[in-house]
Amino acid sequence: MSVLLIFPGRDPKVWVNAIKKEQPNVKLYVYPEEHNPQEITYAVTWKHPKGMFNKYSNLEVIASIGAGVDHIICDPEIPKNALITRIIDEQLTKDMSTFVLALVLDKIRNISLHHSEKIWDPQAYHTVDEENIGIMGLGVLGKSAALTLSKNGFKVSGWSKTQKQIDGVSTYHGERGLNDFLKNTSILICLLPLTSVTENILNKELFEKLPKGAYLINIARGEHLVEHDLLEMLDTGQLSGASLDVFRTEPLPEEHPFWKHPKVHISPHIASVTDPKKVAHQLMENYMRLRNNEPLRNVVDLKNEY
Amino acid sequence: MSVLLIFPGRDPKVWVNAIKKEQPNVKLYVYPEEHNPQEITYAVTWKHPKGMFNKYSNLEVIASIGAGVDHIICDPEIPKNALITRIIDEQLTKDMSTFVLALVLDKIRNISLHHSEKIWDPQAYHTVDEENIGIMGLGVLGKSAALTLSKNGFKVSGWSKTQKQIDGVSTYHGERGLNDFLKNTSILICLLPLTSVTENILNKELFEKLPKGAYLINIARGEHLVEHDLLEMLDTGQLSGASLDVFRTEPLPEEHPFWKHPKVHISPHIASVTDPKKVAHQLMENYMRLRNNEPLRNVVDLKNEY
Ligand SMILES: NC(=O)c1ccc[n+]([C@@H]2O[C@H](COP(=O)([O-])OP(=O)(O)OC[C@H]3O[C@@H](n4cnc5c(N)ncnc54)[C@H](OP(=O)(O)O)[C@@H]3O)[C@@H](O)[C@H]2O)c1
Ligand SMILES: NC(=O)c1ccc[n+]([C@@H]2O[C@H](COP(=O)([O-])OP(=O)(O)OC[C@H]3O[C@@H](n4cnc5c(N)ncnc54)[C@H](OP(=O)(O)O)[C@@H]3O)[C@@H](O)[C@H]2O)c1
Repeated sequence: MSVLLIFPGRDPKVWVNAIKKEQPNVKLYVYPEEHNPQEITYAVTWKHPKGMFNKYSNLEVIASIGAGVDHIICDPEIPKNALITRIIDEQLTKDMSTFVLALVLDKIRNISLHHSEKIWDPQAYHTVDEENIGIMGLGVLGKSAALTLSKNGFKVSGWSKTQKQIDGVSTYHGERGLNDFLKNTSILICLLPLTSVTENILNKELFEKLPKGAYLINIARGEHLVEHDLLEMLDTGQLSGASLDVFRTEPLPEEHPFWKHPKVHISPHIASVTDPKKVAHQLMENYMRLRNNEPLRNVVDLKNEY
Repeated sequence: MSVLLIFPGRDPKVWVNAIKKEQPNVKLYVYPEEHNPQEITYAVTWKHPKGMFNKYSNLEVIASIGAGVDHIICDPEIPKNALITRIIDEQLTKDMSTFVLALVLDKIRNISLHHSEKIWDPQAYHTVDEENIGIMGLGVLGKSAALTLSKNGFKVSGWSKTQKQIDGVSTYHGERGLNDFLKNTSILICLLPLTSVTENILNKELFEKLPKGAYLINIARGEHLVEHDLLEMLDTGQLSGASLDVFRTEPLPEEHPFWKHPKVHISPHIASVTDPKKVAHQLMENYMRLRNNEPLRNVVDLKNEY
């Protein structure tokens, strides 16, 4: 029974240290260092090379180091019986809510607009009570963002798959609730997981159901957004602008039209970053649970894809 | 008994409309249209031409349309017996707190930094609980900003002339409290009124009492800041950056070094803008109180200069 860390293109040191500190006796390999695939029962991953798990016939758990598991599930060759787990972490959740609030305030108070123009050109601002924030996805991150915005005086609605009740937040659900949810939303925030249902959900048809001049914030996944639909809606003025933290290709290619678009605000996938020191505990707790045949925490429902 | 509006360089129309709506029968002149100075008892002003009130021997009240009265008091020729009033308005206060929160979040989450760089270069961010916010001035605006930041999880201290008690905020006062206040402050926010005591208070000596790498936010008045001291402290790294909304000369001149400084974030005096529709009521209420010989609201203590 051993653990394999798989972080292509990232420095695994900080992860190794955090895990060793939590569980000094764990047998740990860092992909692609030499190891026997049969020995691995527990893989801790971010964007593993697709198809690689074919050789790991004793693999029981694939643990994502983030809130999302789309980077695991998109591999059609993951072992049928492996459990997939994800991170639920208070700091990760707080950081996301802080970032969402920062983007909303940046938009209504023109902070980066004024700064980047480098000329004295005061723009009228919106007040907090003028906005109707609509959050797609009311899971761990969406619910927290909704409460943070509501606490700061914003009117907030949310949309999810199943019915929800959240104090101070108007909730809608399912395909039938979508139109009513969108109708009054002046700032639309996507915090959905990426699944075969939610892929490309931010498209022209959806944007046209928003009030004219609405603003988009996507901090979920690049694949939620149909990029040329966004560009078209910005051109017509149906959307007044967009803040994007995630992209179909990351890093966003230098020649991408988003970089220079005056109505697109870009951040480099930095909304919320997992802190290894904060989550090593839950990763190793699940590993010990696996060894002791106890039920695991934060297991993803593969039927839902999230 | 008549009212004179004095807004050099601004369009007075929206003010005239708001006041007429509130008090249709008020006799109203807009400077410099023809009027008899002896008729004027109540002046509503923003940056009146210095010395002009010499001729207004029946003037009883000079009402600022903003929270600050420095633009009135700096005129040595204001009539000795005139009362000076200022605006205290819920929306103005909320807007300031929102703006302060926006600037703090912009700083810790690198929102305008990432946006203006136009390259993919993720910067490590600070979390809310890592900052110690210090607010200079715990009046109407400072106290509200302190509570807003505290509600959002920041550790907040405040400094004022007299002792204060504010839930969840560590308070310091007077010259003797200043060093202790500054010692732990990682983000220093100036919300002081401009007086002969507070002018140039943001200077090298004060900055050197902050922890190395502290950040400055000035949304009070340009004259609080010694500009070349700021530039020097940014060069040495004693300060890591500054967000400035107010300047000694406004609009900030095109050739000013702040415009291109990579560590200076600029906004064009837009932290909080008085909405005529929201404050016409209090201006006219005071005018009626004056006519009825009742005590006025929001009168400034000339001894304090605020
Ligand atoms: N940019 C970044 O730095 C960053 C960082 C972390 C996470 N993220 C992204 O944020 C996503 C959300 O994370 P989370 O922890 O909040 O996920 P979560 O707890 O699983 O919540 C997902 C929410 O989306 C709703 N949902 C899923 N499919 C739906 C559908 N077809 N129609 C309507 N609603 C649907 C769910 O509805 P029910 O509640 O009814 O099931 C739930 O409310 C992650 O998957 C990840 O992609 C981005
Ligand atoms: N950028 C913008 O758009 C904008 C908009 C509105 C206002 N402002 C500025 O914000 C300023 C503050 O407004 P406000 O309504 O909060 O004023 P306020 O209610 O009069 O409060 C002033 C605060 O400063 C403190 N103070 C004054 N002199 C001091 C000194 N020498 N040492 C220590 N503390 C001192 C006072 O202490 P005590 O409580 O002990 O008296 C009080 O707490 C205005 O004067 C204006 O310049 C800027």
